[in-house]
Amino acid sequence: MIRLTVLYGHPQDPLEFDRYYYEIHVPLARAMKGLKGWTIGKCQSAAPGEKPPYHMIVGLYAESRQAMEKILETPEGQATVADVQNFATGGATFIYNDEEVLIPYQLG
Amino acid sequence: MIRLTVLYGHPQDPLEFDRYYYEIHVPLARAMKGLKGWTIGKCQSAAPGEKPPYHMIVGLYAESRQAMEKILETPEGQATVADVQNFATGGATFIYNDEEVLIPYQLG
Repeated sequence: MIRLTVLYGHPQDPLEFDRYYYEIHVPLARAMKGLKGWTIGKCQSAAPGEKPPYHMIVGLYAESRQAMEKILETPEGQATVADVQNFATGGATFIYNDEEVLIPYQLG
Repeated sequence: MIRLTVLYGHPQDPLEFDRYYYEIHVPLARAMKGLKGWTIGKCQSAAPGEKPPYHMIVGLYAESRQAMEKILETPEGQATVADVQNFATGGATFIYNDEEVLIPYQLG
Protein backbone atom coordinates (compact mmCIF):
# COMPACT_ATOMS: atom_id res chain seq x y z
CA MET A 1 0.00 0.00 0.00
CA ILE A 2 1.20 3.49 -0.78
CA ARG A 3 0.09 6.63 1.03
CA LEU A 4 0.16 10.05 -0.58
CA THR A 5 0.10 12.70 2.12
CA VAL A 6 -0.96 16.22 1.22
CA LEU A 7 0.01 18.91 3.71
CA TYR A 8 -1.91 22.12 3.02
CA GLY A 9 -0.21 25.25 4.37
CA HIS A 10 -2.25 27.87 6.19
CA PRO A 11 -4.50 29.54 3.59
CA GLN A 12 -5.14 33.27 3.36
CA ASP A 13 -8.81 32.67 4.22
CA PRO A 14 -9.26 29.44 6.22
CA LEU A 15 -13.07 29.53 6.15
CA GLU A 16 -13.13 29.94 2.38
CA PHE A 17 -10.55 27.13 2.06
CA ASP A 18 -12.75 24.80 4.05
CA ARG A 19 -15.90 25.75 2.15
CA TYR A 20 -14.19 25.24 -1.20
CA TYR A 21 -12.56 21.99 -0.11
CA TYR A 22 -15.81 20.34 0.95
CA GLU A 23 -18.14 21.84 -1.68
CA ILE A 24 -15.93 21.77 -4.77
CA HIS A 25 -12.77 19.73 -4.26
CA VAL A 26 -14.23 16.67 -2.50
CA PRO A 27 -16.81 16.01 -5.25
CA LEU A 28 -14.09 16.36 -7.91
CA ALA A 29 -11.78 13.98 -6.06
CA ARG A 30 -14.59 11.50 -5.40
CA ALA A 31 -14.88 11.03 -9.16
CA MET A 32 -11.43 9.41 -9.19
CA LYS A 33 -11.59 5.63 -9.46
CA GLY A 34 -9.32 3.16 -7.68
CA LEU A 35 -8.39 4.86 -4.40
CA LYS A 36 -8.02 2.39 -1.51
CA GLY A 37 -8.57 4.98 1.18
CA TRP A 38 -8.94 8.71 1.74
CA THR A 39 -8.71 10.54 5.04
CA ILE A 40 -8.68 14.22 5.87
CA GLY A 41 -8.32 16.28 9.00
CA LYS A 42 -7.63 19.79 10.20
CA CYS A 43 -4.21 20.01 11.82
CA GLN A 44 -3.93 20.56 15.55
CA SER A 45 -0.72 21.61 17.24
CA ALA A 46 0.85 19.12 19.62
CA ALA A 47 1.62 22.05 21.96
CA PRO A 48 -1.57 23.75 23.25
CA GLY A 49 -1.91 27.34 22.08
CA GLU A 50 0.60 27.04 19.23
CA LYS A 51 -0.38 27.28 15.59
CA PRO A 52 0.01 23.90 13.88
CA PRO A 53 2.60 23.76 11.07
CA TYR A 54 -0.06 23.07 8.43
CA HIS A 55 -3.78 23.74 8.00
CA MET A 56 -4.97 20.35 6.75
CA ILE A 57 -3.50 16.88 6.29
CA VAL A 58 -4.87 14.46 3.72
CA GLY A 59 -4.03 10.79 3.20
CA LEU A 60 -4.72 9.09 -0.11
CA TYR A 61 -4.10 5.35 -0.43
CA ALA A 62 -3.56 3.11 -3.44
CA GLU A 63 -2.11 -0.34 -4.08
CA SER A 64 1.21 1.06 -5.26
CA ARG A 65 2.84 4.28 -6.36
CA GLN A 66 2.32 3.22 -9.97
CA ALA A 67 -1.38 2.67 -9.27
CA MET A 68 -1.66 6.11 -7.61
CA GLU A 69 0.06 7.82 -10.51
CA LYS A 70 -2.29 6.09 -12.95
CA ILE A 71 -5.28 7.34 -10.94
CA LEU A 72 -3.90 10.88 -11.02
CA GLU A 73 -3.32 10.66 -14.78
CA THR A 74 -6.99 9.93 -15.56
CA PRO A 75 -9.18 12.90 -16.59
CA GLU A 76 -10.77 12.85 -13.12
CA GLY A 77 -7.35 12.78 -11.49
CA GLN A 78 -6.04 15.60 -13.65
CA ALA A 79 -9.11 17.72 -12.84
CA THR A 80 -8.57 17.08 -9.12
CA VAL A 81 -4.87 17.96 -9.27
CA ALA A 82 -5.55 21.09 -11.36
CA ASP A 83 -8.16 22.23 -8.84
CA VAL A 84 -5.62 22.42 -5.98
CA GLN A 85 -4.30 25.79 -7.18
CA ASN A 86 -7.85 27.20 -6.92
CA PHE A 87 -7.93 26.99 -3.12
CA ALA A 88 -4.48 26.06 -1.73
CA THR A 89 -3.42 29.66 -1.11
CA GLY A 90 -0.99 28.48 1.56
CA GLY A 91 0.65 25.93 -0.71
CA ALA A 92 0.48 22.16 -0.76
CA THR A 93 3.25 19.68 -0.01
CA PHE A 94 2.98 16.17 -1.46
CA ILE A 95 4.79 13.20 0.10
CA TYR A 96 4.61 9.56 -0.91
CA ASN A 97 5.48 6.71 1.42
CA ASP A 98 5.26 2.95 1.27
CA GLU A 99 3.03 2.26 4.23
CA GLU A 100 4.62 -0.21 6.63
CA VAL A 101 2.02 -1.27 9.18
CA LEU A 102 3.48 -1.94 12.64
CA ILE A 103 0.09 -2.02 14.36
CA PRO A 104 -2.92 -2.66 12.09
CA TYR A 105 -5.75 -0.14 12.22
CA GLN A 106 -8.36 -1.11 14.78
CA LEU A 107 -11.29 0.89 13.52
CA GLY A 108 -14.58 1.49 15.29
CA MET B 1 -10.14 8.36 15.75
CA ILE B 2 -7.18 10.69 16.12
CA ARG B 3 -3.99 10.48 14.11
CA LEU B 4 -0.68 11.79 15.39
CA THR B 5 1.66 12.33 12.45
CA VAL B 6 5.39 12.55 13.08
CA LEU B 7 7.45 14.08 10.28
CA TYR B 8 11.15 13.38 10.79
CA GLY B 9 13.44 15.84 9.04
CA HIS B 10 16.47 14.60 7.12
CA PRO B 11 18.95 13.28 9.69
CA GLN B 12 22.68 13.88 9.60
CA ASP B 13 23.26 10.15 9.07
CA PRO B 14 20.24 8.49 7.42
CA LEU B 15 21.58 4.95 7.74
CA GLU B 16 22.23 5.40 11.45
CA PHE B 17 18.78 6.96 11.86
CA ASP B 18 17.15 3.93 10.25
CA ARG B 19 19.20 1.47 12.28
CA TYR B 20 18.39 3.23 15.54
CA TYR B 21 14.72 3.62 14.64
CA TYR B 22 14.17 -0.09 13.97
CA GLU B 23 16.53 -1.53 16.60
CA ILE B 24 15.93 0.81 19.53
CA HIS B 25 12.94 3.08 18.99
CA VAL B 26 10.42 0.57 17.63
CA PRO B 27 10.83 -1.82 20.60
CA LEU B 28 10.46 1.10 23.02
CA ALA B 29 7.33 2.33 21.26
CA ARG B 30 5.86 -1.17 21.04
CA ALA B 31 5.77 -1.24 24.82
CA MET B 32 3.11 1.50 24.79
CA LYS B 33 -0.39 0.15 25.41
CA GLY B 34 -3.57 1.33 23.73
CA LEU B 35 -2.51 2.43 20.25
CA LYS B 36 -5.14 1.71 17.59
CA GLY B 37 -2.70 1.76 14.71
CA TRP B 38 0.89 2.57 13.82
CA THR B 39 2.32 3.06 10.36
CA ILE B 40 5.74 4.19 9.17
CA GLY B 41 7.34 4.91 5.84
CA LYS B 42 10.34 6.57 4.28
CA CYS B 43 9.32 9.69 2.42
CA GLN B 44 9.48 9.79 -1.36
CA SER B 45 9.31 12.99 -3.35
CA ALA B 46 6.28 13.44 -5.59
CA ALA B 47 8.64 14.86 -8.25
CA PRO B 48 11.19 12.29 -9.46
CA GLY B 49 14.78 13.24 -8.61
CA GLU B 50 13.85 15.78 -5.94
CA LYS B 51 14.66 15.28 -2.28
CA PRO B 52 11.46 14.73 -0.29
CA PRO B 53 10.67 17.39 2.34
CA TYR B 54 11.07 14.91 5.20
CA HIS B 55 12.95 11.65 5.83
CA MET B 56 10.23 9.58 7.46
CA ILE B 57 6.51 9.89 8.15
CA VAL B 58 4.86 8.06 11.02
CA GLY B 59 1.15 7.73 11.85
CA LEU B 60 0.00 6.84 15.34
CA TYR B 61 -3.70 6.25 15.97
CA ALA B 62 -5.80 6.33 19.14
CA GLU B 63 -9.48 6.63 19.99
CA SER B 64 -9.17 10.33 20.81
CA ARG B 65 -6.59 13.00 21.49
CA GLN B 66 -7.18 12.52 25.21
CA ALA B 67 -6.52 8.79 24.80
CA MET B 68 -3.32 9.48 22.85
CA GLU B 69 -2.07 11.92 25.46
CA LYS B 70 -2.76 9.38 28.20
CA ILE B 71 -0.73 6.77 26.28
CA LEU B 72 2.16 9.23 25.93
CA GLU B 73 2.00 10.05 29.65
CA THR B 74 2.58 6.44 30.74
CA PRO B 75 6.16 5.45 31.63
CA GLU B 76 6.41 3.59 28.31
CA GLY B 77 5.10 6.65 26.46
CA GLN B 78 7.49 8.97 28.26
CA ALA B 79 10.43 6.70 27.45
CA THR B 80 9.41 6.65 23.79
CA VAL B 81 9.03 10.43 23.60
CA ALA B 82 12.34 10.99 25.42
CA ASP B 83 14.10 8.66 22.99
CA VAL B 84 13.26 10.84 19.96
CA GLN B 85 16.07 13.28 20.74
CA ASN B 86 18.54 10.37 20.59
CA PHE B 87 18.12 9.86 16.83
CA ALA B 88 16.03 12.67 15.31
CA THR B 89 19.01 14.78 14.28
CA GLY B 90 16.93 16.42 11.56
CA GLY B 91 14.15 17.37 13.95
CA ALA B 92 10.66 15.98 14.38
CA THR B 93 7.35 17.73 13.69
CA PHE B 94 4.22 16.49 15.48
CA ILE B 95 0.74 17.10 14.10
CA TYR B 96 -2.58 15.84 15.45
CA ASN B 97 -5.70 15.53 13.35
CA ASP B 98 -9.16 14.14 13.88
CA GLU B 99 -9.28 11.53 11.16
CA GLU B 100 -12.29 12.00 8.89
CA VAL B 101 -12.61 8.96 6.64
CA LEU B 102 -13.95 9.81 3.17
CA ILE B 103 -13.04 6.42 1.69
CA PRO B 104 -12.50 3.59 4.21
CA TYR B 105 -9.21 1.73 4.04
CA GLN B 106 -9.42 -1.29 1.78
CA LEU B 107 -6.50 -3.28 3.03
CA GLY B 108 -4.98 -6.33 1.40
